[in-house]
Amino acid sequence: MRDPRHVAVLGVTGYSGLELAELLLRHPSAKSVTFYVRDTQGAKCLSELFPRFRGLGAAPVRQLAVDTITASSAGTAFLATPHEASAALAPALHEAGLRVVDLSGALRFKSATTFTSWYKLAATDQSLLDEAIYGLPEIYGDAASQKALATATLVANPGCYATSVILALHPLTQAGWVASDSSVVADCKSGASGAGKEPSKDLHFVEVDENFKAYNLFSHRHTPEILEHTGLSAERLNFSTHLLPIARGILSTVYVTLSEKRSAEEVETLFRQHYAGRQMVRISAAGTLPELQHVTHTNYCDLGFALDPSGRRLIVVSCLDNLGKGAAGQAVQNWNHMLGIEEHTGLR
Amino acid sequence: MRDPRHVAVLGVTGYSGLELAELLLRHPSAKSVTFYVRDTQGAKCLSELFPRFRGLGAAPVRQLAVDTITASSAGTAFLATPHEASAALAPALHEAGLRVVDLSGALRFKSATTFTSWYKLAATDQSLLDEAIYGLPEIYGDAASQKALATATLVANPGCYATSVILALHPLTQAGWVASDSSVVADCKSGASGAGKEPSKDLHFVEVDENFKAYNLFSHRHTPEILEHTGLSAERLNFSTHLLPIARGILSTVYVTLSEKRSAEEVETLFRQHYAGRQMVRISAAGTLPELQHVTHTNYCDLGFALDPSGRRLIVVSCLDNLGKGAAGQAVQNWNHMLGIEEHTGLR
Amino acid sequence: MRDPRHVAVLGVTGYSGLELAELLLRHPSAKSVTFYVRDTQGAKCLSELFPRFRGLGAAPVRQLAVDTITASSAGTAFLATPHEASAALAPALHEAGLRVVDLSGALRFKSATTFTSWYKLAATDQSLLDEAIYGLPEIYGDAASQKALATATLVANPGCYATSVILALHPLTQAGWVASDSSVVADCKSGASGAGKEPSKDLHFVEVDENFKAYNLFSHRHTPEILEHTGLSAERLNFSTHLLPIARGILSTVYVTLSEKRSAEEVETLFRQHYAGRQMVRISAAGTLPELQHVTHTNYCDLGFALDPSGRRLIVVSCLDNLGKGAAGQAVQNWNHMLGIEEHTGLR
Amino acid sequence: MRDPRHVAVLGVTGYSGLELAELLLRHPSAKSVTFYVRDTQGAKCLSELFPRFRGLGAAPVRQLAVDTITASSAGTAFLATPHEASAALAPALHEAGLRVVDLSGALRFKSATTFTSWYKLAATDQSLLDEAIYGLPEIYGDAASQKALATATLVANPGCYATSVILALHPLTQAGWVASDSSVVADCKSGASGAGKEPSKDLHFVEVDENFKAYNLFSHRHTPEILEHTGLSAERLNFSTHLLPIARGILSTVYVTLSEKRSAEEVETLFRQHYAGRQMVRISAAGTLPELQHVTHTNYCDLGFALDPSGRRLIVVSCLDNLGKGAAGQAVQNWNHMLGIEEHTGLR
Repeated sequence: MRDPRHVAVLGVTGYSGLELAELLLRHPSAKSVTFYVRDTQGAKCLSELFPRFRGLGAAPVRQLAVDTITASSAGTAFLATPHEASAALAPALHEAGLRVVDLSGALRFKSATTFTSWYKLAATDQSLLDEAIYGLPEIYGDAASQKALATATLVANPGCYATSVILALHPLTQAGWVASDSSVVADCKSGASGAGKEPSKDLHFVEVDENFKAYNLFSHRHTPEILEHTGLSAERLNFSTHLLPIARGILSTVYVTLSEKRSAEEVETLFRQHYAGRQMVRISAAGTLPELQHVTHTNYCDLGFALDPSGRRLIVVSCLDNLGKGAAGQAVQNWNHMLGIEEHTGLR
Repeated sequence: MRDPRHVAVLGVTGYSGLELAELLLRHPSAKSVTFYVRDTQGAKCLSELFPRFRGLGAAPVRQLAVDTITASSAGTAFLATPHEASAALAPALHEAGLRVVDLSGALRFKSATTFTSWYKLAATDQSLLDEAIYGLPEIYGDAASQKALATATLVANPGCYATSVILALHPLTQAGWVASDSSVVADCKSGASGAGKEPSKDLHFVEVDENFKAYNLFSHRHTPEILEHTGLSAERLNFSTHLLPIARGILSTVYVTLSEKRSAEEVETLFRQHYAGRQMVRISAAGTLPELQHVTHTNYCDLGFALDPSGRRLIVVSCLDNLGKGAAGQAVQNWNHMLGIEEHTGLR
Repeated sequence: MRDPRHVAVLGVTGYSGLELAELLLRHPSAKSVTFYVRDTQGAKCLSELFPRFRGLGAAPVRQLAVDTITASSAGTAFLATPHEASAALAPALHEAGLRVVDLSGALRFKSATTFTSWYKLAATDQSLLDEAIYGLPEIYGDAASQKALATATLVANPGCYATSVILALHPLTQAGWVASDSSVVADCKSGASGAGKEPSKDLHFVEVDENFKAYNLFSHRHTPEILEHTGLSAERLNFSTHLLPIARGILSTVYVTLSEKRSAEEVETLFRQHYAGRQMVRISAAGTLPELQHVTHTNYCDLGFALDPSGRRLIVVSCLDNLGKGAAGQAVQNWNHMLGIEEHTGLR
Repeated sequence: MRDPRHVAVLGVTGYSGLELAELLLRHPSAKSVTFYVRDTQGAKCLSELFPRFRGLGAAPVRQLAVDTITASSAGTAFLATPHEASAALAPALHEAGLRVVDLSGALRFKSATTFTSWYKLAATDQSLLDEAIYGLPEIYGDAASQKALATATLVANPGCYATSVILALHPLTQAGWVASDSSVVADCKSGASGAGKEPSKDLHFVEVDENFKAYNLFSHRHTPEILEHTGLSAERLNFSTHLLPIARGILSTVYVTLSEKRSAEEVETLFRQHYAGRQMVRISAAGTLPELQHVTHTNYCDLGFALDPSGRRLIVVSCLDNLGKGAAGQAVQNWNHMLGIEEHTGLR
C-alpha cells in the first residue's frame, strides 16, 4: 500500500512545476518530494537547476521514467507535464497504484472528443476520463463530491482561466439568476507565466513589457471547461484572453444580465452563501473590488462585483494567481482533500 | 487678426500637457509655443522644469494668467488644465479671439446637465457648449463637419477611453449592424498616465507594478461621451475601465452582437470603407489583431476584430496611446484641421 | 514577567510593517500579534485596512499609544515607525519591560552625533544607544555576540543597503584581504518599496516605470553603518544608490582591490568559512552569480563574485530582498535569536 | 557615382535594425530606404513584418543578397547584421562603392587580433580595419576628424556600453585629471533590448521582470573599445554590466579618483567645454543628475556628476538610449556627418 504523502513531481522545469516545488517542499504533510525531469543536466538536486531553492532541504532530481517512479515509494504523482506527456504517463502511474493529480488538459473532459477537437492531440483513454475527477474543490468538494475528492485516484486539475471564470459564474448559474438566452462575457487577462516557460518571440521581455494584447479569441482551450462546469451553451459565452505585462495573476471581468432586478446585498449574500465554509474563496464587500496584488503568491480566489442602478447588469471581478489557485496551489488543495486534511494546509 | 500658428499651452505640468509640448515643439507649422503654468517655480523655460526638453529650442514658461495670454500674439490656446479650470478659462480666451482646443471634459457635452451630473462640477455656460465642436476628426471631420472643424473656434478634445470605444463602434452603429436591444460590452484597459500626474496612494509605483484592477465600474465619466456619439442607450452599454501596469496605452475589447450573420470579409470591408481616407485609423486584416506596442508613442488608433463561427458575435479590439490619439495627439490633429493642413502633420 | 512571544507591531502601514505582518501572522512562535497605527481609520483588524490579509486569522488593530501597549501583555515590540517616532517610543517601551526591535535608524549608531549629523534629527539618548545591539546576526550573533542577541532588550535592525554591503565586505575586511588605502566601490540598486509608501512625485508609477536613476550620491544615510561595521574610513568608501523599476530587492555590486593575488577557490573558501553555519547567507559557487529573483520574497542574502585574471580585482555581488533580509525578515531573525530558537524559524 | 541618400538597411529584424527603420523612414534627407533581410517571409514591405510601420509610406523589403544591393542605386548601406555577417558583407559593399555604416563589432578595432580574441570569430581583413573610422562623432567628428567622418566610406558604429562609458570618461582622460594608476569603475546597467531580439531562456519576460542581475563580469566585448578610446590600461578599468527590467536605456555610473582636488564648478566647466558645440551630449548642472527617462527615445547622451567633499572622488552618471545614441541613432548621426548636414538632422 503506497503512502500518498511520498510525492513524485513530474516536469518541474515549467512555471507550474516550480510553484509545486515551492509549495510541496514547505508542506507539513509531505514525507518526501522527488522531482523527475526529462533532462537532469547532471543535477542531483533541485537547487543545482534553480538556485532559488538552495537551503530548502533535500529535493532530489531524477531522470523521468515511469519504471523509476513506480519502483519508488511514491504514493502521489503530480504531473506538471505537457498535455500529451500527461496522457501517456497518467495510465501507467495510476495502474501502479499511485494517486495522480494532473495539471494538464489531458484528463479534464468527460468526453475524449472534446479534448481532441480543442487540443488537436490524440484522444485520452475514455476509461481514464471516466475515472478522473475535475479538481475544483469549491464546486466538487462538498458532501458527496468531497468524498469523491477524498477517495479520488485521478484528479484533473482545472485550467487557470477556467478556474477564474467558473468560480465567478457558478453561484449565478446554480441559482438560476442569469437571464435565459442572454450572453455572458468573460474578459480575462493573465500574466506571462501562464504562457509557459518555453522561450519564444512573443514572450521576449521587450515584446511583453509595456505591451498588452488579446489572443486566441473564440479559440482558447479553456472554453470547453467553462461551458461544462457552468452549463452555459457555446453560443452564449464570449470568452476572451489577454496577455498582461506582469509575471503572475489572472483577473477576469465577467458581464452577466440577471433574470430579474437584484440589490447589491442580495448579490453579496448569494456569493457568500454559495462559498460558505470555503476558505480559499474570499468575497469582497459590495462596493469594493478585488485586485491582483491581493492574491498573487497566495491560493485565494477573490470575487467582487458591481451592479448597475437598474439591478439587472452585473459585473463580477475574479482574481487569482495563475500559478497558485490557477495551477500548483489548487493541485495541493486537491491533494489536501485526498489526504483528508484541512484544504488550506501548506497554502497560507 | 490673431495667427493660430502662435500657440499658448496652458497647464503643461500634467502628462497630456507634456505630450503636447513634445508634439508642438516639433510641429512644422508652430511659429511659437509658449507654456503657461500656475506655478513657474522660477523657471523661464520648459527644460528647467523638465530636463527631457533640453536642446529642443526656445520653450518659454510663464505664469498662467488670462490677461497675459490675451495680450500675447497667441492665436490658439491648448487647455491641458483640470475640468473646472478649463471651464473658467475657455470663455475669456475665446472671447478675446483665440481659437481654443480644450482637453478637459468641460466642453464635451451638448447639455450642461450631462456635465454637472457626471462631473459634479458647476455647469459650463450653455452657449459655450453650443459653440464647441467634439473633436473626433474621423467622425466629425468629413464633408460638412470637416468644414466645421476647419472653422471651429472652440474644440472639445474627446476623452481617451471615449475615443477608443467610439472609433471601435461607430462603423457598426452607423451601418445598423448591431442587433437592436442587444448589450454592448466595452472592457477597457489603460496605462497609468491616464490617471494623471498627481501623486496618490493608488498610483505609487509599488501599488501599480505587477498589479491589475478594475475601477469606476458603471460610473466612469467617459460614459456619456460614448453614448452621445454611438447612439447607444445607457442600459445597453456595459463600459468598464481597468488600470494596466504600463505608462501609456489603452486597449478596449468591445463585444457586439450583430443583427445578422456576417463574414469576416464583410466586417473588414465595413471598417475599411468607414475609415477610408482616414490616415490615423489603421484596420488590421481579418485574422490579425492590433496590440498596444504598435501604437504607443504614435497618433494611430488601430482596430482589429474576431468573429465567431456563427458570424453573429463580433469582438472589436481597439488600441491607441492615451496621450497620443487619446489626448495630445488628437488635439494636434484637430489643430491641423483648424489650420487647413494635412491632418497627420507633425504626428508621424 | 512579559512573554516575548506576545507581539506588538507599531506602524504597520509602511512596507516594512506590512512585511512584518506577513511574517509574524505565520510565525509558529507568535502567541499573539497586535498592530498599532496612528490612524486606525475605524478598522478593528488588519484585513479591513489591507484586503490581502483576509483569512489569515485574528490581527487586531489599535490606536498607537504607549500606555495601551505597556498595559497589554505584549513582551516584544517591533517598531516600523519613522526615525523620530522610534526615538520617542523606544525608551518608554523598553522602560516598561518590553524587548524592542527597532527598524528605523534611531538606535543604529554608537554615537548620538553620528545620528544627528546624518539624519538631521534630535539626538537619541546615549544610554539607549549604549544598550542597543546592532542586529546583524551573521556578524553579531556568534559566540559572545550570540549571547548578546539572545539576551538583548534593544535591537537596532540594520538598514537595507547597509546589510547588503556589510555582508559582502565583512569576510574581506575581517581577513585583511583588502589592499590598504585602496578605494572600495559599492554600487547599489534598490526596488521602489525601499523608498517608503508615502506618495510623492518621484514615486508615481509613470516616473519609476521604464526609468532608472542614481540618487543621494555621497549623502545616503546608510553610509555610517557601513563604515562602522566594515572598519573602512569614509574616504575609502564610494557608496552609491540607484532606484530600480521593481517593487523589491537590492543588488549591490562591490568592487575591491585585494592586497595580494588570490584564486577564485580561495575567495569562495573565505566566504564559505566566514558564513559557515549561517543559514541565511548563501554563497554562489565560483563562476556563477546570484540574481534578485533568487532572493525576493525570502530572507536570504546571496553572495557571489568574479575575480579578474590578475587575481587582484574582485567584484562581489550581493542580493537580498529589502523588505526581507533588509528589514522585516531580519527583524524576525533577530527576534528568533532573542527567543533562543532556530534563526530561520518562520522565514522559509 | 552613387548617391548616399539612397539607403539600404541590412538586417532590419533586430532591435537596432527596427530603430534604424523608425529613424530613416522619417529622415528628411533619405531619398529612398530599402530593407534587406535573410528571410522575407513573403513580405514585400516592412509593415507586413511589423504592423507598427503601417502608414509610414513605402518601405520595400527584399531578400538580402550582395548582388541585389550593389545592383541597386543605394549609396549608403547600414549593416544591422551579426558580427560575422557584417565582416562578410562590408568588403563587397564597400568595394562596390557604397558607403558603409556597420553597427556590429566587426570593424571597431585597429587590430584584427583584438576582434578575434574578444569575439572568438575569424579576423576581419586588416585593410578594412585600417580604412574604418570609429563613429563617435563627439570625439572623432571635430577638425581633422570631422573631415574624416565627412569623407568616410567605412564607419564602425560604437558599442552601446562603450559609447556610454567613453563619453563619461573622455573629458577627464583627455584633460589628465584622472589620478595616475588609480582604478576606474564603470558600473553599467542596460535595458533588455541591448541583449538582442533572439528568444532565449534568459530573456523570457518572466525571467527579466522584477529581476536584476550582473553578467559578463571581466569579459564583456565592449571592454577593448573603452580601453582604446580612453587610453586606460586593462588593469585600471573595472567594467561591469547588468540587465535592467526595462526595454531600453543604459545608465553607467563611473567612479574616478581625481589627480588633484577640484570643485564642482571646475568639473562642470570641463565637461561643458569638452562638449561645446556638441548638440547630442547634454551636461547636467552640478547638483542634478540625469536619469534614463530623460533620454529614452532620443539620441542624447546626458552626463551628470557628483563630487565628494574632498574634491577628489568623482562619480559621473551617463545616460543614453541603447537603441538611440547607443546604436541606430548614432549611426544616423554618423551618416549626417557623411552627408555634410547638421548632425542632429532627423534625430529630434
